[in-house]
Amino acid sequence: MAAPIRVAIVGMGKIAHDQHLPSIAGNGDFELAATVSSRGEAVNDLPHFRTLGELLEAGVDVDAVALCTPPQVRYDLAAQAIAAGKHVFLEKPPGATLAEVALLDAQAAAAGVTLFASWHSRYAAGVEPARQWLRGRKITAASIVWREDVRVWHPGQDWIWEPGGLGVFDPGINALSIATHILPPFFLLEGRLSLPSNRAAPIAADLHFRTSDGAPVHMDLDWRQTGPQSWDITVETDGGTLKLEKGGAVLTTPEGTQATDDREYPGLYARFAELVHAGTRDVDTAPLRLVADAFLRGHRLTVEEFHD
Amino acid sequence: MAAPIRVAIVGMGKIAHDQHLPSIAGNGDFELAATVSSRGEAVNDLPHFRTLGELLEAGVDVDAVALCTPPQVRYDLAAQAIAAGKHVFLEKPPGATLAEVALLDAQAAAAGVTLFASWHSRYAAGVEPARQWLRGRKITAASIVWREDVRVWHPGQDWIWEPGGLGVFDPGINALSIATHILPPFFLLEGRLSLPSNRAAPIAADLHFRTSDGAPVHMDLDWRQTGPQSWDITVETDGGTLKLEKGGAVLTTPEGTQATDDREYPGLYARFAELVHAGTRDVDTAPLRLVADAFLRGHRLTVEEFHD
Repeated sequence: MAAPIRVAIVGMGKIAHDQHLPSIAGNGDFELAATVSSRGEAVNDLPHFRTLGELLEAGVDVDAVALCTPPQVRYDLAAQAIAAGKHVFLEKPPGATLAEVALLDAQAAAAGVTLFASWHSRYAAGVEPARQWLRGRKITAASIVWREDVRVWHPGQDWIWEPGGLGVFDPGINALSIATHILPPFFLLEGRLSLPSNRAAPIAADLHFRTSDGAPVHMDLDWRQTGPQSWDITVETDGGTLKLEKGGAVLTTPEGTQATDDREYPGLYARFAELVHAGTRDVDTAPLRLVADAFLRGHRLTVEEFHD
Repeated sequence: MAAPIRVAIVGMGKIAHDQHLPSIAGNGDFELAATVSSRGEAVNDLPHFRTLGELLEAGVDVDAVALCTPPQVRYDLAAQAIAAGKHVFLEKPPGATLAEVALLDAQAAAAGVTLFASWHSRYAAGVEPARQWLRGRKITAASIVWREDVRVWHPGQDWIWEPGGLGVFDPGINALSIATHILPPFFLLEGRLSLPSNRAAPIAADLHFRTSDGAPVHMDLDWRQTGPQSWDITVETDGGTLKLEKGGAVLTTPEGTQATDDREYPGLYARFAELVHAGTRDVDTAPLRLVADAFLRGHRLTVEEFHD
């Protein structure tokens, strides 16, 4: 058994507390070594720092860092960690731009460290079985409906509305991370982005894609949904309809329905350990590329102001 | 001497007439075989068709196609040509989205045909000497100033203002194709896009990039320039200042100035022949990726209406 990977969490926000801490605690391949937080937050009397630079200078024994900060500041932290020879786990999206992620990947390759652009939704319980089920079947159409209430899920997160914060594509990129994993390659034909007049990022989007085989893929993203929430992908095939619900957790095919407990972040950390031990990287930018394409090619509509 | 590559031009607009026809005529590796134009335009009594599909069905002997249509319709044409086993020369930008270009590249690889995403400005006379001069020197800053009068250069080209048409990034991507060729990798930190209130694409942009070495790269793009036009890149180094002017045609270093006749499109066709003969592809999406990043991450300002 290899020694545990000593990991520091950078950015002690909601996702670090809800997901990273319990996943690290529950995986024997990892040991939490330190935390970095602008508020100086500590965990279990472990070393804690206000910046990654302070952690690196302090000489704390750390093999890897998990970057849970907003994407707009992720590049500098990742580049700094890679230059110090640390393995890097990037929260999604892996950066604020595609070019910076490509650059980090090249830097990690040159430094011989692991870089993991994580897409947690790909580790939802139904996703891998869905991928297997679709293999060999002819896909004729797909529909993605991701409708949630931003006030419930992102209360007061101003960074998400800033350029680079993606707006409704912050959850929407989760759907795209699943779709790019289970469907043939697809690309944008046309789209409409709805932007509140007081915000720089979209609150809703309606996108028409097409797969390499000519099948239409429609995506309906909306952050203004109250009442029941939807995180569903439906795929029509020559072997019947596949439906992934609850963000990929529940899978229904003509053979029946399966649902399993949430194992997304434990799955991500298992994958990260595998990459570190194998000395390799996993940096798939396809979901972010589709979002960039939507910003590049989509029509923009101005809609009413949004206030938290 | 191999038999000439029999090439068909698809899209008989300004760029086909001004550049593609004379470059094909002036290169013994090529022979013009047919034209495709929605207006049914013929050249030298050669076979002519209204669609690429008609050309392919007619069984005309063609090895390659040069796609000179607007980017919004390029994917379907390229996919059709690749599926028919033809080599493909893509005008810039290679597509309306990054995902479709990646998909075409995969399709060309699978079909064993050449795909060439052409960036004509990289073949401007000063670019390769600039690249050589910069090699081994430390770059401390760079500035790109691309200011032209859209009414002079793109009169009545409505497609350029539509989503996928890039607006001022249509010339700006030429600058980025040079900069990504001669500078270390760089990525966007922040930017401002100015959009006329009656148009879907920017008329100006102000962008701040940074190289992997930490050097700032500033880009000033404007389509509202009357009087003298600017297509200049200035690079500050530890060995003095390098300046590329007139879109890359004129190079000045501390050693002096060199200017040569325009050889951009002849250079592109020489490269295309080389790729076809070698059985390889050249699909660099870095310039389009930076544009997508600018749309993804840039702030948008609304400016006054633009009318041709």
